[in-house]
Amino acid sequence: MNEFELIARLTKSLPTNQNVVTGAGDDCAVLDLGVPDKLFLFKTDAVVEGIHFKKNSPPEKIGRKALARCLSDIAAMAGTPTTALVTIGLPENFKPGFVEKIYGGMNALAQKHGVAIAGGETTTNPDRIFISIALLGTVGREKQILRSGAKAGDAIFVTGELGGSLAGKHLEFEPRLHEARWLAENFSIHAMIDLSDGLAGDLRHLLKSSRVGAELLKSTIPISRAAKETARQKPFTKPPFIAALTDGEDFELLFTVPGSDAVKLLDAWKKQFPKLRLRCIGKITADEGITIRNKSGAQPLTANGYVHFA
Amino acid sequence: MNEFELIARLTKSLPTNQNVVTGAGDDCAVLDLGVPDKLFLFKTDAVVEGIHFKKNSPPEKIGRKALARCLSDIAAMAGTPTTALVTIGLPENFKPGFVEKIYGGMNALAQKHGVAIAGGETTTNPDRIFISIALLGTVGREKQILRSGAKAGDAIFVTGELGGSLAGKHLEFEPRLHEARWLAENFSIHAMIDLSDGLAGDLRHLLKSSRVGAELLKSTIPISRAAKETARQKPFTKPPFIAALTDGEDFELLFTVPGSDAVKLLDAWKKQFPKLRLRCIGKITADEGITIRNKSGAQPLTANGYVHFA
Repeated sequence: MNEFELIARLTKSLPTNQNVVTGAGDDCAVLDLGVPDKLFLFKTDAVVEGIHFKKNSPPEKIGRKALARCLSDIAAMAGTPTTALVTIGLPENFKPGFVEKIYGGMNALAQKHGVAIAGGETTTNPDRIFISIALLGTVGREKQILRSGAKAGDAIFVTGELGGSLAGKHLEFEPRLHEARWLAENFSIHAMIDLSDGLAGDLRHLLKSSRVGAELLKSTIPISRAAKETARQKPFTKPPFIAALTDGEDFELLFTVPGSDAVKLLDAWKKQFPKLRLRCIGKITADEGITIRNKSGAQPLTANGYVHFA
Repeated sequence: MNEFELIARLTKSLPTNQNVVTGAGDDCAVLDLGVPDKLFLFKTDAVVEGIHFKKNSPPEKIGRKALARCLSDIAAMAGTPTTALVTIGLPENFKPGFVEKIYGGMNALAQKHGVAIAGGETTTNPDRIFISIALLGTVGREKQILRSGAKAGDAIFVTGELGGSLAGKHLEFEPRLHEARWLAENFSIHAMIDLSDGLAGDLRHLLKSSRVGAELLKSTIPISRAAKETARQKPFTKPPFIAALTDGEDFELLFTVPGSDAVKLLDAWKKQFPKLRLRCIGKITADEGITIRNKSGAQPLTANGYVHFA
């Protein structure tokens, strides 16, 4: 049983109440706490030694990553993060200086985005460091962007470049908070998700929530230099294009807008964010499933996203 | 370095913002999210296999305990819990049925208290199950009860009976949510904390926050049957009175009210909660430190609360 099958079983019968606008199954939970013009976003995410970082990863980057992952989920709803709590499980022989540096990396990123760290909890996890972040954010009422709004004819966009994140980006990525809010304020974004499981996997999540399909244009998928470099160094692992489709932890934004807005969006983006690439990689189709088109025609995408249990 | 020393170092320089009314250092963080009549309580807490439960503990009780610990912290602020997220770290060979039962125990307790579980996150923790709960609650504006309000002359009260929780109560305790709200609505509660580290340790936390001391009356400390039974079975470990002072995970309420309200409170409590004992165990003093009085006089309490790294 993989992560997604387990989650499907566990989320079938979760208790709910009148505060919950959107529960399990999107990037964040959306809560109505009675503020007239705002909804609240609520998210938890964990990083674990040996899974999401190495024992010898720089501690500042470990802490930074732990928070950045949650921030990326707030970005995927076009929200603004406000308050975090930090739960850290430590082996008994932990080094206080190492833990302080983890917090240092976290605090610096929090400050950059105006996020308060209002406490949390320390506990024992005997074998490895385990960091769980709980994050609250806000979004204008009716302004939250879900995974479920994609429509046939939408253009599909992705920020940045994909694949090879494990070579370093996974510890240093910038959560696309400003970009997401700008998109939501200036365009009709139908659906959005952040890329944590890989383009193919996360696109499938978005398509499933929206009950539509997609056709991607192979030549437009932005492949990162790291993915190309990794393929050069390890020629028997996956080629760069497959890495861009299936590598996890890109933490870029994947979103759809009405096809008629595509050109206007690309023009406005280039002026607003000249240093960050935005690519139209295909379109939403009424038929479900993903096909990839290249010069010789279209074929169904069988390579699934990396189904990581994380 | 123990848990409390580490926390003191880590919480010195946490970033904050205008939403945070009370940050690290109380039972919950208190947030002002712009609702005119309400403040929000935000809490995370974790349970870890081999630390807070055993590999063969009944899974329903593991899930129940994970949530109940957080609910107890909401109770300590006289709040009402509303929405939880669940982060669960699982070894790769996890049994889906076991995990579903963990959620079953958690869901049942959530439903009992009207709490929604709005999602969360599954991840890998290779060696053991790790469950972190993030919980949001509400409390009337200016109605939150902190650790820091105790005043010299206050009477000190404790609910239930103390010590020996590891014999079973730690998996089955009832978070004192109703009792705490009734107290806050009907009496002037100056300070409150839930007992997770043991009476001596948690009283010290409350006294330190309030910058006062306490004199306890030895004969009034309510000792649980489990503490007495454990002492009978293991006569070379601590005597029952010391267990009641220092055992962790009682999850009872410890609070102070003006001394002049003590008798009225005891009378009203007996009518309201006839099945749950409430004991006045001493009084707040202007001099810092804890003394314990018995027939032969008063002596300083040196037995510290169990400083568990959890």
